[in-house]
Amino acid sequence: MARLICDISMSLDGFVAGPNQTLEDPLGQGGERLHEWAFPLVSFREPHGLPGGETGADDEVVAESLRATGAVVMGRRMFSGGAGPWEADPNADGWWGENPPFHVPVFVLTHHARQTMTMQGGTSFTFVTDGIEAAVEQARAAAGDKDVLLAGGAAVVQQSLEAGLLDELQIHLVPVLLGGGVRLFAEGGRGTDQIGLERTRVIDSPAVTHLRYRVVK
Amino acid sequence: MARLICDISMSLDGFVAGPNQTLEDPLGQGGERLHEWAFPLVSFREPHGLPGGETGADDEVVAESLRATGAVVMGRRMFSGGAGPWEADPNADGWWGENPPFHVPVFVLTHHARQTMTMQGGTSFTFVTDGIEAAVEQARAAAGDKDVLLAGGAAVVQQSLEAGLLDELQIHLVPVLLGGGVRLFAEGGRGTDQIGLERTRVIDSPAVTHLRYRVVK
Repeated sequence: MARLICDISMSLDGFVAGPNQTLEDPLGQGGERLHEWAFPLVSFREPHGLPGGETGADDEVVAESLRATGAVVMGRRMFSGGAGPWEADPNADGWWGENPPFHVPVFVLTHHARQTMTMQGGTSFTFVTDGIEAAVEQARAAAGDKDVLLAGGAAVVQQSLEAGLLDELQIHLVPVLLGGGVRLFAEGGRGTDQIGLERTRVIDSPAVTHLRYRVVK
Repeated sequence: MARLICDISMSLDGFVAGPNQTLEDPLGQGGERLHEWAFPLVSFREPHGLPGGETGADDEVVAESLRATGAVVMGRRMFSGGAGPWEADPNADGWWGENPPFHVPVFVLTHHARQTMTMQGGTSFTFVTDGIEAAVEQARAAAGDKDVLLAGGAAVVQQSLEAGLLDELQIHLVPVLLGGGVRLFAEGGRGTDQIGLERTRVIDSPAVTHLRYRVVK
């Protein structure tokens, strides 16, 4: 069965988005800093249709993840920044235009049903209204013998961890302090007595530390 | 001038102590898990007067820190678990008995004045009532050409970071989730616009990842 792997950038103080997220500033104040390490990489630029870029350890980590990913699961807010009925969402078609950088089927968790959108370049967006377990099940079926990448946001990661669905956790730990925003790990989560982690790999560059853990079930 | 270096163990979800701290359980539920990586090490056992132990990468990180440390700063709660007047503190002489494992001068931040305690083995406890800057200044004078180690707790680390006193941050990131407790980085701290970090070193073992950052001032 396809493994479910959370792959997310986090600040040293534990945030995956900065404070005061808006449509104009979807990552919140300072939140762009969490992703700056990736922007120059070949493996980031190529799926976005951009030429050139940097290679090296960070690039290989991202390229490895791309090669392994057969489907993606994400939350509604990560898809559009919105909530509620789609008719009232000014960003209802998502952030990425006609040719999104995923190039695999994407399953979006939402409370509001909607037809699947088939985009250019192999990306499709399927909207799943019956919860994280159903979304992961559909994504696993779509991924075949590849992995399912859980892209975020934090609430979806927490749900998948609490539900025992997550197989691995890859955190790109960025040496910045955001001082506030959206935490990857909320207060009141289940602790280590219930959720064990085994660190499987650490890859390190000046820009970011790639921490990889297996969830022990 | 002696550098001020925070040296602290943190869970992957950002906690330096578990929930429900008590005198019987000073690290909170699950909090011992944050320090288990250190207990077997020669460099942990030797200052505690214990023979033998393990060597290796983790041991060298701790031994390096011990060699470099000329004085320690800590908060009152880390010293005794208590708060308020010393007469009412059932653990007023601290956790460590007659021969504490520090073997250098220790400066304890408190609101309640008290005579310096001179212990066996080179440890002394000096109680500083006029704030973090004064405590660090006294510790720097005592440390000579060595570093000042900021041992915790979280509130004291945050104060020193906000006050621009901290030179380096060494976080021993432990692959456990505590699900609650005391966060090293509180909401509402100053963000990266004000506090820059430069990752200077990552040393890694299955038990713990030693992350080291320089605070850019």
